[in-house]
Amino acid sequence: MITIAVDCMGGDYAPDEIVKGALWGAAEHRVKVLLIGQPSRIEALVAESPYRHVDYEVVEATEVIDMGETPASSIRKKKDASINVATRCVGEGRAQGVVAAGNTGAAMASAIFNMGRVKGIDRPAIAVHLPTVSRPFLVVDAGANADCLPEMLLQFARMGSIFYSAIHGVDNPRVGLLNIGEEPGKGNTFSVSGYKLLEEYDEINFVGNVEARHMYEQHAEVAVCDGFTGNIFLKTSEAVALLMLRMMKDAVNSGIRARAGGLLVKSALKSTIVKKVVDEETGGAILLGVKGLCVIAHGNSKAYAILNALGLAKQAIEQNVVEQMETKVLEGCM
Amino acid sequence: MITIAVDCMGGDYAPDEIVKGALWGAAEHRVKVLLIGQPSRIEALVAESPYRHVDYEVVEATEVIDMGETPASSIRKKKDASINVATRCVGEGRAQGVVAAGNTGAAMASAIFNMGRVKGIDRPAIAVHLPTVSRPFLVVDAGANADCLPEMLLQFARMGSIFYSAIHGVDNPRVGLLNIGEEPGKGNTFSVSGYKLLEEYDEINFVGNVEARHMYEQHAEVAVCDGFTGNIFLKTSEAVALLMLRMMKDAVNSGIRARAGGLLVKSALKSTIVKKVVDEETGGAILLGVKGLCVIAHGNSKAYAILNALGLAKQAIEQNVVEQMETKVLEGCM
Repeated sequence: MITIAVDCMGGDYAPDEIVKGALWGAAEHRVKVLLIGQPSRIEALVAESPYRHVDYEVVEATEVIDMGETPASSIRKKKDASINVATRCVGEGRAQGVVAAGNTGAAMASAIFNMGRVKGIDRPAIAVHLPTVSRPFLVVDAGANADCLPEMLLQFARMGSIFYSAIHGVDNPRVGLLNIGEEPGKGNTFSVSGYKLLEEYDEINFVGNVEARHMYEQHAEVAVCDGFTGNIFLKTSEAVALLMLRMMKDAVNSGIRARAGGLLVKSALKSTIVKKVVDEETGGAILLGVKGLCVIAHGNSKAYAILNALGLAKQAIEQNVVEQMETKVLEGCM
Repeated sequence: MITIAVDCMGGDYAPDEIVKGALWGAAEHRVKVLLIGQPSRIEALVAESPYRHVDYEVVEATEVIDMGETPASSIRKKKDASINVATRCVGEGRAQGVVAAGNTGAAMASAIFNMGRVKGIDRPAIAVHLPTVSRPFLVVDAGANADCLPEMLLQFARMGSIFYSAIHGVDNPRVGLLNIGEEPGKGNTFSVSGYKLLEEYDEINFVGNVEARHMYEQHAEVAVCDGFTGNIFLKTSEAVALLMLRMMKDAVNSGIRARAGGLLVKSALKSTIVKKVVDEETGGAILLGVKGLCVIAHGNSKAYAILNALGLAKQAIEQNVVEQMETKVLEGCM
């Protein structure tokens, strides 16, 4: 049976919503969960859950890393922090994956430290799904490496392709370089160099430069970029989606006729847009390039988001994403 | 009377929609327009216009720079291109400003070459308005300089502040550094260095790092960043706004009840969102740091967008934006 470690102490709504979501996820996705954190608090929450009969185990962790702490130093200082205990469970083979909603930097540093890097990968990267009108696309790197060398784009492209292919069943997914113009030669010196390297790299299906709209119009399945640009792309997308929802609400509230109509469309809107865009259903970010499956859920995750993060982790584990990385990345290096 | 040169040959809908918009703008904003391009085509369009009695002059330009051409070489090779004639009109004092909807790079290069840089400004930058639920904010640089040194952020901040203050009547507008985290020290090496410089620069009202959502929630009036990041920010915002509109449409069409409601909210949505977000009402981008007012409208501008571009140009000319740059930028350098 697949076992997934859940850091119950990280995230804005920890531990309540995390434990709730972990048990719900264990029931829904039929996995075993290791609930990492303060045993007394976790057991109390388990006792209240309708899913208390799932396969779970509580693993004690005496410390917690807060959102504001510096990742590298905090994971070293707080050896018994919940995120460290969780990633160690994967490193030691007690679990195949981890789900964490706390400090992203700390989760990353902890995963790299305790799970180790896939051979051939210099810098693990964060992959995030963004929605289109149909199938989502993947952005790599979405924030792990703020400063990048153009060469790193090759590994991002390779890891993104392997992951996308495994999760969505798409052979040879199209990879675009996120840029500010379509033609080769556009962009900054980083993207001009990156373009040349990607163009010559046979292990991926490179389709050239892509702008934001091309990704949202499904010209490619994977967008690669440095982690700074990827994070700007991700956060701008979220911010504009929220702005549009708010404007929509204001528009609907602006007149009696519109208001009457608004009530009718509300449910339709909610079911399509809100869930797609506001990330609760995408399951969270995945740290690619470490030896174990690591899903980093949004800091504001509630139970439903954790349920979906477990679903994503289970799917990736079933598809042997990590093993595929280990064999295919090495092939690509040869 | 204020005179504005309009490049009638640049843009996806040139010359028809450009000439239409220029005459409409001349009537609406009471300015004189110089219509730059092929006289016979322009005169034919003028003859059809309900605004043919406005104050206008046709200025011949025998060449056109296409969207795909390399900016620097094309403006040198095609001396008589419409964009060159238009910016020369400003350089020679025949007009105070120029409106162009063609090749952005060419417009920029041509404006710098023929109008000259404001003393103290090393690299002119593009400023773009983005909407919030109330007053828009400004992004500088939105794409003129793909590769930047951190020092350039100071001039972007200064120019953005002066422009925002002049156009929106806000004293000492708040300036944020567009970044991927709030705390000082977040981001890439460029933003870490830029933060330190901005923090010590007394000539602006620096409020620290801002993420996309902070700008959309009005934590600052001006966001500064390198031109690559600014362009990603801008294009992602546009792409997501369009995606959301499409999702909204799909949601509204997804069921009979929703459809009935959708018809009722449609007009409300159109009046608030579409016009605000789809850039027709913001007038376009402004090239800051050149000696003359230069509005670069979207390539897909139709008459209504050109009307608004003229409105923005007129307002900036009335507020003496260029003169303010010339005096205040120098003060800031002392």
